[in-house]
Amino acid sequence: MEKVKPIEFQQGKLRLIDQRKLPEKLEYYECTSFQHVCFAIKEMVCRGAPLIGTTAAYGVALACREFQNLKNVEEFYDYVKAAMSELSRSRPTAVNLFWALRKMEEVLDNCYQKFNKGKFNSLTEICEQILNTAHQICNDDINTNYRIAEHGEKLIPPNANILTHCNTGALATSGYGTALGVVRQAHFVGKNIFVYADETRPRLQGSKLTAWELMQEQIPYKIISDSVSAMLMKQGQIDLILVGADRIAHNGDTANKIGTLMLSVLANEYNIPFYVVAPTTTIDGDTDHGDQIIIEERSPREVTEINGCKIAPKDAPVFNPAFDVTPAENISKIITEQGVFNPEKISSVACY
Amino acid sequence: MEKVKPIEFQQGKLRLIDQRKLPEKLEYYECTSFQHVCFAIKEMVCRGAPLIGTTAAYGVALACREFQNLKNVEEFYDYVKAAMSELSRSRPTAVNLFWALRKMEEVLDNCYQKFNKGKFNSLTEICEQILNTAHQICNDDINTNYRIAEHGEKLIPPNANILTHCNTGALATSGYGTALGVVRQAHFVGKNIFVYADETRPRLQGSKLTAWELMQEQIPYKIISDSVSAMLMKQGQIDLILVGADRIAHNGDTANKIGTLMLSVLANEYNIPFYVVAPTTTIDGDTDHGDQIIIEERSPREVTEINGCKIAPKDAPVFNPAFDVTPAENISKIITEQGVFNPEKISSVACY
Repeated sequence: MEKVKPIEFQQGKLRLIDQRKLPEKLEYYECTSFQHVCFAIKEMVCRGAPLIGTTAAYGVALACREFQNLKNVEEFYDYVKAAMSELSRSRPTAVNLFWALRKMEEVLDNCYQKFNKGKFNSLTEICEQILNTAHQICNDDINTNYRIAEHGEKLIPPNANILTHCNTGALATSGYGTALGVVRQAHFVGKNIFVYADETRPRLQGSKLTAWELMQEQIPYKIISDSVSAMLMKQGQIDLILVGADRIAHNGDTANKIGTLMLSVLANEYNIPFYVVAPTTTIDGDTDHGDQIIIEERSPREVTEINGCKIAPKDAPVFNPAFDVTPAENISKIITEQGVFNPEKISSVACY
Repeated sequence: MEKVKPIEFQQGKLRLIDQRKLPEKLEYYECTSFQHVCFAIKEMVCRGAPLIGTTAAYGVALACREFQNLKNVEEFYDYVKAAMSELSRSRPTAVNLFWALRKMEEVLDNCYQKFNKGKFNSLTEICEQILNTAHQICNDDINTNYRIAEHGEKLIPPNANILTHCNTGALATSGYGTALGVVRQAHFVGKNIFVYADETRPRLQGSKLTAWELMQEQIPYKIISDSVSAMLMKQGQIDLILVGADRIAHNGDTANKIGTLMLSVLANEYNIPFYVVAPTTTIDGDTDHGDQIIIEERSPREVTEINGCKIAPKDAPVFNPAFDVTPAENISKIITEQGVFNPEKISSVACY
């Protein structure tokens, strides 16, 4: 899967795999402006908390390019800040977005000060520094995922049947993956694992993206409807559960794809280890507990239509939250690039 | 909803609402032979344990009509028995199918003996008696549902938020419904209820059928993905859960639509009453406990395609069980036409 590049910046353009088109077609969505990036995040051309962060960082780089011909640095600075603000409103739950934008803002502020002190000759130099920061965020994320995978792989017993939810693979990150990165690593070291992939309604990231990634890697798997896992757990056919995270609160409560809470309750009922896998950029030290996390509610059409086919009565009312919050006490361990933690200790490695 | 007739026998033809076409179109599927009936049950033109039973009974009546011109009663008897055997293989889990066929067989055997004793003048008379028995099964089922609804309604508090799974309405029965019949009754008596309808993957009976029925009745509701209910329960937004049943074992273990087990575990976690609603014909006194119930596995295409749209990689492997088994200890009460029972006492009202 390292061959699959979910995100690439080349010749002034950001190229994303258009994940709305998978698994039917491997197509790319090209961003040449920060508005394109806002659209890509909002409409889920790309998704996955770590990938949203990286994409937003490149969005800032594109904004800098767009505004580099402005007359003075103040104007440039104000416009880029406004672009950042728009990027920050693209999706509300994944904290990696805000983390990446904060990092970009620090660099921008620093460049602005340096420019005013005469340490830069042109806005182009600021643009370069900003772009390099985005590249760094991207590469850091990939390296982080390798380290997560190494820590996580040690928790996987040989011949394990692993249940996973949503997509947490290369396609959810800058590369390699979080929870699915652990799966990949366990497969690579020859642990003879088998994966049950929740299809993950409403957007079907499991059957569309995770199945596609597992197929590419020739990791044996089966897709299941989201309601099947209880039966498998009761029958002793699941050895452990690996899920990603969109935001981890100070106390270890974790927001992740809708359906994660359900899996955590079932895991506890049937005594199955339940692991959250995420980079430390997903930890939000500013949020005390899960109840404070804003849960995005998305369009009813995600539930009432699939690929344009209507599957419910016209104008049927829908409740469609994108995420839910799993309480820390339902989580066995949180696997990060800095090691494996009990959820109540996770704030010790928070990035902010 | 009493206006909606899921099943009707008129002028030698069995007319079923083609539930595969709802909610887009209200079309009918006409059966003029028992083979048509086998197809209708197998391909889920009609579905729902009680309706499967009634449909199979009419299938026997159609077989009798087809074979009434045979030369002698032995041949007629053998052909109708063979048709029954084929009908019994149409779906494996819902016990109402076997109950209805057993009832039809008793009548057939009785007619056969009477014929041989000279008490009938023609095979046509046997056909009439068989058809009347099918009519009786159909009417009994509707009356049973009214009685279930009256018992069940007493358990619904005013202003209740009710979670339901799959379709257990008029469309799952000969009319009125089981779990959704209780909902309907509570609405009719003015209890100001609100329904959350699980969409119920893979076949989406919740969003396609239950939503359609609730809309017809103007009962307020929202559709949710199957993985959303945990969040609602945790937030205290569900007051009780009503589900149907495809087979209830002697000890109260209940096979029902895949996803029911998950709901029962969540209900227990969050202290929410979990009610199974079914006629006593669903109780299988011959099956000691749930592990003995055969669970139908259906085509992978139910999971990988929706309305012909592909939603997974080509030839993706799938595990697609149609039902799961909820242990008796997860069930608060079983609501039947004979009253409300603790699950461990349910065998006292078994029909066979």
